[in-house]
Formats: sequence, C-alpha cells, structure tokens
Amino acid sequence: MLQHEQLVLASASQIRKQLLEAAGLTFITEPANVDEDAIKQAVRGDDSTLRPADIAQLLAQTKASVVSESHPDALVIGSDQILVLEDQLISKPATKDKALDQLIELRGKTHELISAVAVVCRGETLWSYEDVARLSMRDVSSSFLGVYLAEMGDEVTKSVGAYQLEGLGIHLFEKIEGDYFTILGLPLLPLLTFLRTRNPPLV
Amino acid sequence: MLQHEQLVLASASQIRKQLLEAAGLTFITEPANVDEDAIKQAVRGDDSTLRPADIAQLLAQTKASVVSESHPDALVIGSDQILVLEDQLISKPATKDKALDQLIELRGKTHELISAVAVVCRGETLWSYEDVARLSMRDVSSSFLGVYLAEMGDEVTKSVGAYQLEGLGIHLFEKIEGDYFTILGLPLLPLLTFLRTRNPPLV
Repeated sequence: MLQHEQLVLASASQIRKQLLEAAGLTFITEPANVDEDAIKQAVRGDDSTLRPADIAQLLAQTKASVVSESHPDALVIGSDQILVLEDQLISKPATKDKALDQLIELRGKTHELISAVAVVCRGETLWSYEDVARLSMRDVSSSFLGVYLAEMGDEVTKSVGAYQLEGLGIHLFEKIEGDYFTILGLPLLPLLTFLRTRNPPLV
Repeated sequence: MLQHEQLVLASASQIRKQLLEAAGLTFITEPANVDEDAIKQAVRGDDSTLRPADIAQLLAQTKASVVSESHPDALVIGSDQILVLEDQLISKPATKDKALDQLIELRGKTHELISAVAVVCRGETLWSYEDVARLSMRDVSSSFLGVYLAEMGDEVTKSVGAYQLEGLGIHLFEKIEGDYFTILGLPLLPLLTFLRTRNPPLV
C-alpha cells in the first residue's frame, strides 16, 4: 500500500521497528555498527558548543550513513534518542545498579528526551528532524525504585532513561509533555510526511 | 505490587484494559450496560448548555455507577471518549459506509478528542478528570480513504473517529497535540495519581 522505494531502518530498537510496522511500511532492519559513546565523547570534546539536539542528529545521520554504504539504492532511516538532565547528557545504564543510580538522579526532576531522525540515500542526508519531550518524575522513594527495578529485570538497561513508559515505568511519572512518538524514540508523523514526498502515490 | 483495594474497569475497550494491565494493576473488567446514545440525546435535549466535556464525564460516571451496584466494595473506573468537530459531537460509526462519510467530514480539519474518567465507590464519585487532545487530519483524497478502509476492515467501526493511531490510521494525520493516553481514551497519569492516594504503599 505504502511505498515503492526500498526502506532500511538502521536501528536495533524493537519499538522503532514496531512503529514502522504498525504504520504498514515495508522495510528491512539493519542496525548500524557504530560506537555511540565514542562519538558522543569525541564531539563533546571537540566542540562544546554543540547542542544535545545536534549530537542526537549527528548520531542519527551517522548510523544511517554507515548502513547506506551497503544499501546504495535504499532510503535509510537513522535515529537516536538522548536524555538531558540539567544540561547533562545521560547515557543508557549498562547495569541494573547503574539504572538505580540514574533513577535516583532523575527522581523529583524534569528531564528532556530528544529524538532525532534522518533519512540518508547514497551517503547524502535527504531529510532530518528533531523533537523534544519533557518528563517530570515523581519524587519516588528508594524502596519504590528497588521494587520497580526488581519487577523490571534487565529491561531497564534497554532504554536510555532506565524506564519503559509502555509498562510499569509509567508509575515513575507525574507529568509527561510532548509527542508520544518522540518519547518512544522516533518522530513518526514528520517521517511519514517526508516519505510521502518521495512516494506520491501515497497521498 | 500496586494496590490492595479491589478495582473494576467498567469498559469493554480493549485498549483501556491493555493500558491498566501494562501499568501492572490488578483488576477485573465488567462493561456497563448503558445506552450511551440515548443518554447523549437526552442530555443534549434537556440542557444544551452542557459542554461536550460534561457529557463525556456524565457518561464515565454513569458507567461506573451502574457497575458499582454489583461491586459495592470496589473502586470502579468508568471512562468515556467523545469526538468534537466544530462544536458537533461525532459518534462511533455503525458501518464501514458511515466510517467513510465520517472520515470525509474530518479530513482537512482539526477535531478534538475528549476523554473523561471517573472513579466511583458505593455509587459515589470519588474522583473525576477530563482532558482534551487536538488532532489535525490531512486533506487526504477519497481514493486514499477507500484504500485505507479496505485495509482496516471492520476495525474502523470500533473507535470513535474511525481511525486507529496505533495502526494505519497514523497516515491520516499531519499533527497530533495532546496527551497520548487521552487520545487512547484513558488519561492514565492522573488516574494513577488518584489511585495512589487510596493505596499509600504505592508511593
């Protein structure tokens, strides 16, 4: 129904894959082999004037470009999500202990989730977009966090904020402002709008 | 983990059930046997000063109260969602033909989805809440709507707007403003906040 150009999603994220599938797109998935932390550290060192949104965009484009090399005729979708707390970038927790530390840092405060998406073809970025959502975490007790982490298991190390809003993580929050797709990590409506410009029969 | 009072969801909606399950709540589901259209027509006739949000709230409370009769010790959650286009209430389409008419009316315009939720115990409303989301539909062609409806099948008659944002319906929209849970039909964060006041161990 939806497109004639070949589409590749350069991401290992299950939720991004689900979003594109739910929208009826035909695509293949090929995660980019990119050292995200090294890139973040490199660009922060080189040029501290880069905004967090610029870094998310750089990562999205880098992932798409890398995958584009082996799919020269395809539109490659790259994406990235960054968590910012008081101007500080927070990375995905490597372990459950780190997840607890991170949740303790986030509780009682408002943080930002920045999602960037880019579409690359033959190494050239044809389109890019970023959006920000703001999430306010309740000042939950450490014992609540302990129960929460025990229930969640290793799932907490799979998302940047150590929470999953589509599950028990919703209990951590008192206020969520912004686009749901941005919170999930892929601003879907702008992406579909761009894809329609490439596939006029869609409209 | 989450509560000690008995909870009943007075709704037949699959998505509302899924939202409460994902949040880890323990509850039973018992749809209220209420003639919603009759109530809407009655209150619109009696008192045209009622706002659409008042009508959604009245329906949410009525559903919860009816179910509360057979569950006197439980907290009963009632909810309702209303679609408003240019001050006009739009009902769930009864057939696929009606769904097409409705989508033709909605296209190229912005409509509101109002979601109301109420918690009733022993016939008394303990808490209630309403929220509004605004959705702007693209000016899609009738042939696109034909393809869309063919793909969706009878699913389109199950939601108030004849679209499902969690599936192909996302292609109908150019802009979505508001809380995702409100769009799905159950403002989840305020509901959880209320339930925590009843179940202090939650915090």
